[in-house]
Amino acid sequence: MALLRSYVSGGWHTAADDGVPLHDAATGEEVARISSKGVDFAAALEHGRRVGGPALRELTFHQRAALLKALASHLREHREELYALSAKTGATLGDSKFDIDGGIGVLFSYASKGKRELPNDTVYVEGNVEPLSRGGTFVAQHIATPLRGVAVQINAFNFPVWGPLEKFAPAFLAGVPSLVKPASQTAYLTARLVELIVGSGILPEGSLQFVAGSVGDLLDHVTAQDLVSFTGSASTAQKLRAHPVIVRNAVRFNAEADSLNCSILGPDARPGTTEFDLFVKQLVTEMTVKAGQKCTAIRRAFVPAELLDDVAAAAAGRLAKVTVGHPASEGVRMGALASLEQREEVRRSLKALLDAGSVVFGDPEHVEVVDADAERGAFISPVLLKADPERSEPHEVEAFGPVSTLMPYTSTEQVVDFAARGGGSLAGSVVSADREFVRDVVLGAAPFHGRLLVLDADDAKESTGHGSPMPQLVHGGPGRAGGGEELGGVRGVLHHMQRTAVQGSPAVLSAVTGRWVTGAPRSEGVHPFRKSLAELKIGDSVVAGPRTVTQADVDHFAEFTGDTFYAHTDPEAAAANPLFGGIVAHGYLVVSFAAGLFVSPEPGPVLANYGLENLRFLTPVKVGDSLTVTLTAKQITPRIDQDYGEVRWDADVTNADGESVAKYDVLTLVAKEQP
Amino acid sequence: MALLRSYVSGGWHTAADDGVPLHDAATGEEVARISSKGVDFAAALEHGRRVGGPALRELTFHQRAALLKALASHLREHREELYALSAKTGATLGDSKFDIDGGIGVLFSYASKGKRELPNDTVYVEGNVEPLSRGGTFVAQHIATPLRGVAVQINAFNFPVWGPLEKFAPAFLAGVPSLVKPASQTAYLTARLVELIVGSGILPEGSLQFVAGSVGDLLDHVTAQDLVSFTGSASTAQKLRAHPVIVRNAVRFNAEADSLNCSILGPDARPGTTEFDLFVKQLVTEMTVKAGQKCTAIRRAFVPAELLDDVAAAAAGRLAKVTVGHPASEGVRMGALASLEQREEVRRSLKALLDAGSVVFGDPEHVEVVDADAERGAFISPVLLKADPERSEPHEVEAFGPVSTLMPYTSTEQVVDFAARGGGSLAGSVVSADREFVRDVVLGAAPFHGRLLVLDADDAKESTGHGSPMPQLVHGGPGRAGGGEELGGVRGVLHHMQRTAVQGSPAVLSAVTGRWVTGAPRSEGVHPFRKSLAELKIGDSVVAGPRTVTQADVDHFAEFTGDTFYAHTDPEAAAANPLFGGIVAHGYLVVSFAAGLFVSPEPGPVLANYGLENLRFLTPVKVGDSLTVTLTAKQITPRIDQDYGEVRWDADVTNADGESVAKYDVLTLVAKEQP
Repeated sequence: MALLRSYVSGGWHTAADDGVPLHDAATGEEVARISSKGVDFAAALEHGRRVGGPALRELTFHQRAALLKALASHLREHREELYALSAKTGATLGDSKFDIDGGIGVLFSYASKGKRELPNDTVYVEGNVEPLSRGGTFVAQHIATPLRGVAVQINAFNFPVWGPLEKFAPAFLAGVPSLVKPASQTAYLTARLVELIVGSGILPEGSLQFVAGSVGDLLDHVTAQDLVSFTGSASTAQKLRAHPVIVRNAVRFNAEADSLNCSILGPDARPGTTEFDLFVKQLVTEMTVKAGQKCTAIRRAFVPAELLDDVAAAAAGRLAKVTVGHPASEGVRMGALASLEQREEVRRSLKALLDAGSVVFGDPEHVEVVDADAERGAFISPVLLKADPERSEPHEVEAFGPVSTLMPYTSTEQVVDFAARGGGSLAGSVVSADREFVRDVVLGAAPFHGRLLVLDADDAKESTGHGSPMPQLVHGGPGRAGGGEELGGVRGVLHHMQRTAVQGSPAVLSAVTGRWVTGAPRSEGVHPFRKSLAELKIGDSVVAGPRTVTQADVDHFAEFTGDTFYAHTDPEAAAANPLFGGIVAHGYLVVSFAAGLFVSPEPGPVLANYGLENLRFLTPVKVGDSLTVTLTAKQITPRIDQDYGEVRWDADVTNADGESVAKYDVLTLVAKEQP
Repeated sequence: MALLRSYVSGGWHTAADDGVPLHDAATGEEVARISSKGVDFAAALEHGRRVGGPALRELTFHQRAALLKALASHLREHREELYALSAKTGATLGDSKFDIDGGIGVLFSYASKGKRELPNDTVYVEGNVEPLSRGGTFVAQHIATPLRGVAVQINAFNFPVWGPLEKFAPAFLAGVPSLVKPASQTAYLTARLVELIVGSGILPEGSLQFVAGSVGDLLDHVTAQDLVSFTGSASTAQKLRAHPVIVRNAVRFNAEADSLNCSILGPDARPGTTEFDLFVKQLVTEMTVKAGQKCTAIRRAFVPAELLDDVAAAAAGRLAKVTVGHPASEGVRMGALASLEQREEVRRSLKALLDAGSVVFGDPEHVEVVDADAERGAFISPVLLKADPERSEPHEVEAFGPVSTLMPYTSTEQVVDFAARGGGSLAGSVVSADREFVRDVVLGAAPFHGRLLVLDADDAKESTGHGSPMPQLVHGGPGRAGGGEELGGVRGVLHHMQRTAVQGSPAVLSAVTGRWVTGAPRSEGVHPFRKSLAELKIGDSVVAGPRTVTQADVDHFAEFTGDTFYAHTDPEAAAANPLFGGIVAHGYLVVSFAAGLFVSPEPGPVLANYGLENLRFLTPVKVGDSLTVTLTAKQITPRIDQDYGEVRWDADVTNADGESVAKYDVLTLVAKEQP
């Protein structure tokens, strides 16, 4: 059988020994062998730092996003091959799609987020400019820059494709190279994934490395610029967190550990309601998808005490219809656990759980299977338990398989407390149509959860379910769940970057960030609307006006637009307004006049005004006030896939006293070249 | 001498033994004694969780902010008393102000940030609603809720007032109670601070506890809902980070450790330039303020090789004028180190540094002092060294006193590399008027720094300097600096909260967050502008229109406002525009007409439209299109100190096909009661 290779330091490395065998979860046959013997881990890290990092940092966020998209499309072409290999892990086709399509979906999602929410630039500018002085000569801006190390990503066996990709995508988008190390049991699938990625030639060399087998002395070489992220058991997470080099160098460490996730049925959801059925159906799904080997699966199901028997009966009825067997066989709904060792582990945990409860459905020691040998393959029956929630075991012992425990509760306060006894969870769900109950449970349970799903008749059709992490949403949870946070869109990208507060003059901040900052020099000359994206520079500006606002203007605008609000039309009532003390011009009149002043009307590079942001009316405009507007190019973002880009302009409308009456950002599309 | 008391579990606790003595840094006299013997730490944590936390969580962010402001004002009244006590720590009046006024300033800053940047609510809503489905029935929103534990804050000896307050303010604003434990050496000042705070009665009981002396078994009792933050030495930070309970429970741990901060002089800043003088002056200031006992002080000063002698001579000249002596004495510019033990520590570190360099100014073993005994008090001379930057000692050994090392560099790339050799720093500075050099150094050094100051002639007058952390800006740095992050305005508040992604239908998200979410039910009836803040509910809305946009409207608007952009006025040119393909109505016309449609003109609770946000023009409006606007109350924020508040409205302007042509938020001020 093939020995899996590592991809390190720019080439494929075959281990110096024969490795250890990996087995098909359903048949027990050997699939591959694995070993990392001979891999020079220090050199691999250095390769990432010296080759991968610099190559990535030369690209803008948009360029990296485009590569992620290309990679996602490439992998989508090879899905069938991955599905076939995935079956050997015990996964049904549905399970495989969850893993493989899910992973590809993360790439697409980050490609899209990168393009829409990050600048076409190498520096991320976070938040507003912070004024630090009265005179305005000393200000600050937070920026984020990619760490100069390698993201070491240690993954769990249950998601050999999604796991590596969900860690890789945000790191790559941040500009940080990855070193991927999957759990051995299912590493042959990750190895094939990496072969496809490397073979595609899409990624810059050094941006993705792969270790098949143990990490050896890898962690002895990590520095404060590297990151270590881990998905797996709570005990391994603890060992890694306390690793002397991680501790000594304050290495960023992120853990995502299995947790005792709960699902809560609302007191309104009696048998016959949509929510009752949704709860039972979701419980059975979460127990059986991936044979329950999901760190987000429901381990604790809390139901109103008076509904416990109904839920137990309904769930048992559904579970009885679940066909277990060879994952590739027709009609099989649940495949095998990943290995015989996993089954032993699950049976051990079940024993501990049974000390505190009893079986509702299933036999931990026996299961009928289709097209397979129930003992040679790592098959196990779904097992639903019920238990006393005052016992500690159901809140602490996780059987990482198709196992869940039903428990009764009698009040909202009590079920919130029960939920918290898990000590921190990745995901929880509430199934109820009672909004007040939902609000109390969500706000009560939130401090203990990374994600909470509310399921009801309204969202059931489109819901992605309790167990599905989404790339847009944070994934991770406090305490028992590892205390980490991954994904969450741009949040996951920023976890790979260093946030730095930069203090200086406005001119310096403009030079550092490439964005014009209030107080930085402006440059007048050719009207900036006459400049193409290629010619325009931040700070280019036009000062236009003054235009005096007359009583006739205000009267006319009111009549023309229909905006006859009393502060514009009724002198007596306006005088009584505590903020104005008399007639004021419409805010919309002010910005309309400003546009009339700053516009350069002839056809040219400026294609459209597509929006406005952060508009504040700062000083009331009275009849007789004369308005001047200063428009300054603030941020220039060429699109990589269009012949135009965005220009954000700073607009400052002032009165004759030089006071700002309105400030806002004008958003335009501008052609890259002169038409 | 007085035995310092702890404030725990709702009362003052006097230790069960005599404690150990604390000495005046300048005279060696005993100031107080300290011991925490007999404190029940588990009970104190539980008191914070059971009494302090719930009391805080009942308050909104704005209410907590108001208490911080009241506390800041109260402490400001007692500054003189604190200054006097501070002198015993070796601090001059200037040093004391840095610590005490700085700490009070943090409270004021968080009071202001809390009011302006956080909602008058108990839940923090972060980022946009994330669409998760095509049909829009399944969406998500990230929220942040306060952790249900206690923020254990272990502070360093050098800032007995600022240290505790900079950790306390964000925790309090988040709704998390604090347990403050200062370093013993200067704990008498923190003890007095806490007496003033507790005595004021301003804070809810349990929101601030105080331990004088060792933390005993405190850390054995922390859970995943507690936080531990530490400021002090790198070695203690490592010990705490690896504490078995912190590791086991994945307790949020934040460290801020002394680091080898650098300041870089630009090649342009030759003798005679403003920047040369700024660099030398700042270096001497950073060496002597607090006798160099600042974790942000400049330890490494990089200067162009050809300027090393000039800088050395200029700095030595300035240092020679620094008068050392009793901190309360007239004319004394530098006081004592905090203790004789600290002086021994500094001398030990100096020995190691001298292996790699030589003295430019000062004698580690001797100093002339005013009004004090140089040996009985912890006095030491400022010592400026120069060294070879290729040696490791200057980048690794920190003498935590008035000590800094000059080192030469020859290129931008090289000095960026030298800066990084500190292994991660809290703060760095660049002194240069060369914008290109500044940009390269800032972006190159940013991944290794929490804060970077650029000093030049433009900002020097208003700059707060290299060594001053600002509450608005993050404080902390990677690696050697502890890998933590504090302050940074709202960022520091969120570090005390759990971020949770909540998934559900728009109606559910509205119920949970108290904000109307697109797709949630709307309620029409009485025009919402006729409702006071007390009567208005989220979801209250008005649908108005249609109004048809005519050619005359567009022509007239162009002529009236002066906005004669060709896409509104020139059919032929407009037809060639790739986005419009013909005449379009002005965006400003659309929003003006929308206002005319949704307004309710008579005097009423709505006082003013003070702004607009997130306006996007989504579909071009052509002549003949008829517009309808739907305005919906989205967020209602009563002000706690005014008889009005903010209402944010969702505005959606649609055409006859139901397509959105413009979407935006309208910001208004609305009276709490009917006029």
